[in-house]
Amino acid sequence: MTELATSFEVALPAWLRTSARSSPSRIAERARRMAFVLALAERNVREQSGGPFAAAVFERDTGELVSVGVNVVVASGQSLAHAEVVALALAERSLGTFELGDRDLELVTSAEPCVLCLGAVHWSGVRALVIGARDEDVRAIGFDEGPKPADWIAEFARRGVHVERDVEREDACRVLALYVDLGGPLYNATA
Amino acid sequence: MTELATSFEVALPAWLRTSARSSPSRIAERARRMAFVLALAERNVREQSGGPFAAAVFERDTGELVSVGVNVVVASGQSLAHAEVVALALAERSLGTFELGDRDLELVTSAEPCVLCLGAVHWSGVRALVIGARDEDVRAIGFDEGPKPADWIAEFARRGVHVERDVEREDACRVLALYVDLGGPLYNATA
Repeated sequence: MTELATSFEVALPAWLRTSARSSPSRIAERARRMAFVLALAERNVREQSGGPFAAAVFERDTGELVSVGVNVVVASGQSLAHAEVVALALAERSLGTFELGDRDLELVTSAEPCVLCLGAVHWSGVRALVIGARDEDVRAIGFDEGPKPADWIAEFARRGVHVERDVEREDACRVLALYVDLGGPLYNATA
Repeated sequence: MTELATSFEVALPAWLRTSARSSPSRIAERARRMAFVLALAERNVREQSGGPFAAAVFERDTGELVSVGVNVVVASGQSLAHAEVVALALAERSLGTFELGDRDLELVTSAEPCVLCLGAVHWSGVRALVIGARDEDVRAIGFDEGPKPADWIAEFARRGVHVERDVEREDACRVLALYVDLGGPLYNATA
C-alpha cells in the first residue's frame, strides 16, 4: 500500500523567503499595497515559481505588513497552495491565531478569489478583501475558478466582510497576460 | 514589525499518526469506508483534538486507503485545517501529485463540504465525493459553512465529479451531536 502521509507543509519560493526579510514593514498608502502585491505576482511569473497570483495581509489602518503569499501549487505539489490561502495561513501562523477577525486586517489579492480562496477568506475571519483582476479575467486565460455563488460579495457583506474590486485591474491583468506569454502551465485538474 | 512567516505545516493529531500506521490498507466494501471515516470523526471528538469531522481518500475500485484527515483547526492554529483539506493534501503528498484526477479516487467525508472544502475538492481533481451528514446538519449545530452555490452538485457533475449524499447520515449526525454534548468549541470567525 501507499505509505500514509501524516503532515504536509507549504513554503514560499526561495526568492520570496529572501526578499520577505527586506520587505517594507508597513505600506501606509493604500494604493501602494496593491502595487506591492502585483510586483510579487509578476516576480512569481518571471521566476517560474508558480501561477500569476500573489496576495498579502495588511493591518488596515497602519498598513503594517503581516504576511505575503504567492501561488506555489506546482512547486509545493499541493493544489491548495493558492496565493490567498498561503498569505492567510502565514498571517495566522505569524499572529498565532486561526481567527484573524480579532484584528482589523485586509487581504490584498492580485486577482478575485476562486471558490477555494473564498472559503479560506471566510474561515480566516479577515475583515476586508481588496482585489485586482476580476474572476472573468482569470477564467479568460484558462483557469477554472470553480463553482462560486453569484452573490458572494453580498454574502460576505452580510457577514461583515468588506470587498473592494478593480483596484489596479489593468496592471493586474498585465501580470496574467505575461504568464500566458511566457507559457506558464494552466494546471486545472477537473478540466 | 511582526516577523514574516515563510512556511506553514499541518499535522494529524498524535493518536491518528499512531493509528494511521495500523489502518487497514484497503476497505473493499464501500459501505464500510464511511464507517471507518465516522470512527475517525468520533475519535477526534473524544480525544478533543478538533472539530467533529473526518475524511479519507480511497481508490474507488479497490478500496485502497490513500490518506486520512480530521479537523485540526484549533490544534494546528490554521483555519484551513478542515478534514477534507487535510485528507486531500495528504493524498497529494503521498501520491506525489497535485492532480488527483489522474487516478480513480473518491473522497469519503463525514459531512458535506463547506465552501473551503468545495474549493479543495475542485482543485484536487478528485473524481468522486461520498458524504455523510448534510450541510444543514452541520449548520444546525452552529457552524457557518459559508457562501456555497445552491447548485454545486450540478456544477461538480458538469466537471465530471460524482457526488453521493446521505451515506450513513444518521450515524454522521450522531458524531455532530456528540461534539455538542461534550461542549466542543464552535469556532467561527465571521459570526
